[in-house]
Amino acid sequence: MKLYGAILSPFVRKTAVVLNVKGLSYEHEPSFPGSLPRTLSPLGKIPAFTDGDLSISDSSVICEYLEEKYPQVPVMPKALNDRARARWLEEFADTKMTELAGGIFFERILKPMMKLGATDEAKVNDVITNLMPPQLDYLEGQVPTDGWLFGSFGTADIALVSSFYNAGYAGFKVDAARWPKLAAFIGRVAAHPAVKKQLDAEAALMKQMASANK
Amino acid sequence: MKLYGAILSPFVRKTAVVLNVKGLSYEHEPSFPGSLPRTLSPLGKIPAFTDGDLSISDSSVICEYLEEKYPQVPVMPKALNDRARARWLEEFADTKMTELAGGIFFERILKPMMKLGATDEAKVNDVITNLMPPQLDYLEGQVPTDGWLFGSFGTADIALVSSFYNAGYAGFKVDAARWPKLAAFIGRVAAHPAVKKQLDAEAALMKQMASANK
Repeated sequence: MKLYGAILSPFVRKTAVVLNVKGLSYEHEPSFPGSLPRTLSPLGKIPAFTDGDLSISDSSVICEYLEEKYPQVPVMPKALNDRARARWLEEFADTKMTELAGGIFFERILKPMMKLGATDEAKVNDVITNLMPPQLDYLEGQVPTDGWLFGSFGTADIALVSSFYNAGYAGFKVDAARWPKLAAFIGRVAAHPAVKKQLDAEAALMKQMASANK
Repeated sequence: MKLYGAILSPFVRKTAVVLNVKGLSYEHEPSFPGSLPRTLSPLGKIPAFTDGDLSISDSSVICEYLEEKYPQVPVMPKALNDRARARWLEEFADTKMTELAGGIFFERILKPMMKLGATDEAKVNDVITNLMPPQLDYLEGQVPTDGWLFGSFGTADIALVSSFYNAGYAGFKVDAARWPKLAAFIGRVAAHPAVKKQLDAEAALMKQMASANK
């Protein structure tokens, strides 16, 4: 199996964590959005993934495939209603939270790094002050006080908070006084061994990039 | 079961077709994007869906739920690689094709109808001339010469072409000389009884709207 993508992407992180949880070994090929041939990723997005003859992209599609092909350690709940809720929370995070939390990372980290212009701090402030709070209120009502969303640790847990780690690199932290359950959940997911492995690799990369930029 | 949404939405159409294929009866509650309470649709998007106590939104999440809860008439292929490909094609259509083909419908039909400003014909021309052709080339290589994508008719078939019916209302037709398999496939899907039922209801609605706008 081969996973193509940049490890700092919230979607690549989600997919790598699912592979880690399932204890599957895979090759990682560092790739940036737009760099992959159409045969690997028809829209140029990351991650892309191959398993023998199969070549797919889109993190949700890949994670569903991994769950069906390698079910020994499940990452989806069993009950149908929980499965529907898990898929919804993943979709919510992959769209809205990546737009908002991922947007902070884009403005403050990626734009300067990739010489795409100066950070638009007014935009970042609008996200933090106006756009994010209603979504954080929603998530505060979804996450559990202890443990994981649906019993054992799964795709929805990492998906829900993946882009918050990107926002964290850009100096954003969920206010634990206002959203205590969510702030604790983000910390709990970060400490899960399958996630910690990724975050440690990312920390090493962030350090390299920071010294290269000096 | 209750389906909330506007029947002209490519995503509502996809969900309704899956319900039709499975022969499930449901109530339809006409609803526009942004009109639904957060409990039904946390991002205000359509469709939203309820089945007893379960309340979910996002057409892909709803269709996966329907497949798991009501598997008697399947809308997903059985083989794992085919399932992954089916999910990918659905995702591709729900994002890129809705952006492009759905964008033509938005510019030419929704904008004037909802008094959101004049149609930007330069933008429509850019979509038709520059942005759409590489995606149509890709789809031409995906669709079958006869029958459906994966044996029996399923979610991927309607998902893949749903936004083309919207583009059709706005005067766009896939050039059958340049993309013969795709053009034939769009027509074949339209003639499937589960799809025809929806398109007939849409035609009646389009007629009503046209006479109301006079």
